[in-house]
Amino acid sequence: MKAAILHAPLDLRYETVPVPAFSDGEILIRVRAALTCGTDQKAYLRGHPKIRIPGALGHEFSGEVAAAGRAVQNVRVGDRVACVHTAPCGECFFCGKRQPNLCETLTDRMAYGAYAEYIRIPEHVHRQNCLPLPPGLTHEAAALTEPLACCVYGMKQVNVREGETVLILGDGPVALMMVALARLRGAHSVAVAGRHKARLDVAAAAGAQRVFGEQSAASEILDFFRPRGPDVVLECVGNPDTWRLALSLVRPGGRILLFGGCPPGVEVPIDAGKIHYGHLAIYGTFHFTPVEVREALNLLESGSIPVYPLITARVPLSDIPRYFSADAPKDYLKVAFIP
Amino acid sequence: MKAAILHAPLDLRYETVPVPAFSDGEILIRVRAALTCGTDQKAYLRGHPKIRIPGALGHEFSGEVAAAGRAVQNVRVGDRVACVHTAPCGECFFCGKRQPNLCETLTDRMAYGAYAEYIRIPEHVHRQNCLPLPPGLTHEAAALTEPLACCVYGMKQVNVREGETVLILGDGPVALMMVALARLRGAHSVAVAGRHKARLDVAAAAGAQRVFGEQSAASEILDFFRPRGPDVVLECVGNPDTWRLALSLVRPGGRILLFGGCPPGVEVPIDAGKIHYGHLAIYGTFHFTPVEVREALNLLESGSIPVYPLITARVPLSDIPRYFSADAPKDYLKVAFIP
Repeated sequence: MKAAILHAPLDLRYETVPVPAFSDGEILIRVRAALTCGTDQKAYLRGHPKIRIPGALGHEFSGEVAAAGRAVQNVRVGDRVACVHTAPCGECFFCGKRQPNLCETLTDRMAYGAYAEYIRIPEHVHRQNCLPLPPGLTHEAAALTEPLACCVYGMKQVNVREGETVLILGDGPVALMMVALARLRGAHSVAVAGRHKARLDVAAAAGAQRVFGEQSAASEILDFFRPRGPDVVLECVGNPDTWRLALSLVRPGGRILLFGGCPPGVEVPIDAGKIHYGHLAIYGTFHFTPVEVREALNLLESGSIPVYPLITARVPLSDIPRYFSADAPKDYLKVAFIP
Repeated sequence: MKAAILHAPLDLRYETVPVPAFSDGEILIRVRAALTCGTDQKAYLRGHPKIRIPGALGHEFSGEVAAAGRAVQNVRVGDRVACVHTAPCGECFFCGKRQPNLCETLTDRMAYGAYAEYIRIPEHVHRQNCLPLPPGLTHEAAALTEPLACCVYGMKQVNVREGETVLILGDGPVALMMVALARLRGAHSVAVAGRHKARLDVAAAAGAQRVFGEQSAASEILDFFRPRGPDVVLECVGNPDTWRLALSLVRPGGRILLFGGCPPGVEVPIDAGKIHYGHLAIYGTFHFTPVEVREALNLLESGSIPVYPLITARVPLSDIPRYFSADAPKDYLKVAFIP
């Protein structure tokens, strides 16, 4: 089969490799769409502790069951399915704490390698997180299940409520999905601060009442959230300056979701007085659980998430090396690779 | 009347002053017990932006209604009452957000000055936060209503649940009340790390399964919370090192209550990776609402909080200057001043 194999950082090759072997309990999915994601891009640039090299990249995907081991009963060959790359073990410390998003083996036993014609799905993954695709939902849309599940989980933590005001920092796919989720929860007003005019237009189309471009000052943002600042700030960038900005803009008594992961080893200085006397709640977030996978797929089926403004290109899988190289087309949101 | 008046930082005088005048809507409480608190000690040492100088210190108290303005209907002269020094306005931005603990005028219109024979209580305070003392509850115990309400509110935010493991950093009165609250919520195990042998003995008596003294290493604490660290850490000290310790000790997926306020202007560097990938929730906390005042008084009435280990001395009000001076008796928890 054809696949995009990362041989070393910056060395991604579209090449012919064997179709993965699978055991009695496993299945093989014929990938019909796989999306770009920042994690794959980071792995391309500098490697990733949890992603095998050499190995295929890609973990946001949808497809059809191409083959199933003899012991498999939950899906059948030919089923159109949405699938994610992980599932919890159900047995470890964190699963016992009802936090399966933190499962100890979550990233050890992944279905990684969706930038390929076929992907093997471990038994614990397809049993929990391989769901029939609702009729009418495209594979590209279904491939958003994984990143949307992350957003749904983060949104649950910070729990935006009806009538609240929400500031979203960032204008990438996560930020734009968060706009839709905040509106679905009945937020009174949602504003987005970002750097890309085209993406901010998408944010407005997705329901943001106000967008702030690169030239906007913090005071301009606060003026929109008079008199006190936003009830909730969603940090969807992942750098220390934006973390600090989130903390400085939220109103006293407000809540912050730190969705964007900062680079390893970063320490962010935070204002102790603002946290304590300002009565803030600050949430870090990681991954999702099988519950959010179902919820994300339901949201996609319902049409509540603006899929195609997020998927800005649809290209053959063979185009992958170009999209990961230095001369990749600029300013796309997500690209769907079609094997 | 006699009162302890702060004339300037480090200048606290026990002297004769006029009994406070009161308006038609206000009441006068004859103070029967007033407790020491860190806020009063800070005001003594360096002043406090919200505490008038010259003026009487003291805000944790209980007493009897000595006089009431003509318009007062909710209490009668002679009533034994527990009272706190603040109440929300019910009208401002934060009251409208159901966060009356952050009421804009909360600390502008306080009943401050309980280190005195009489204290005047503004109308909005006594209407909301002046409660009949249950028979059998002493004034010293009732004077704990205010600090306990703070603890109850903080505990609600971090929401310790049945079966969870809890680490409390600090061994002051707040830390010791938190031990009792965590046990009441069904915590599986509670450990306290502090510096004072006598206080740690109180913590053990209040239900802490394990205490760690000054010589204990972080590794020793983590060993007690095998395999991953405590579910919840309650920081009850208020300095940057302890804040960082709280963040470093909590398990992935855990929660931290930053109860102790750091000195003004302090920035605490926090590990962004631990917050994000560790999926932490961090709560700052400030004050309480009228709901927690009632709950605190109910807890005191029920005998669930170990009052007398916390109130380690009972002295005449005239002893106040000594208790605030450099040669104060060492290692007391709370002192009850009896006018």
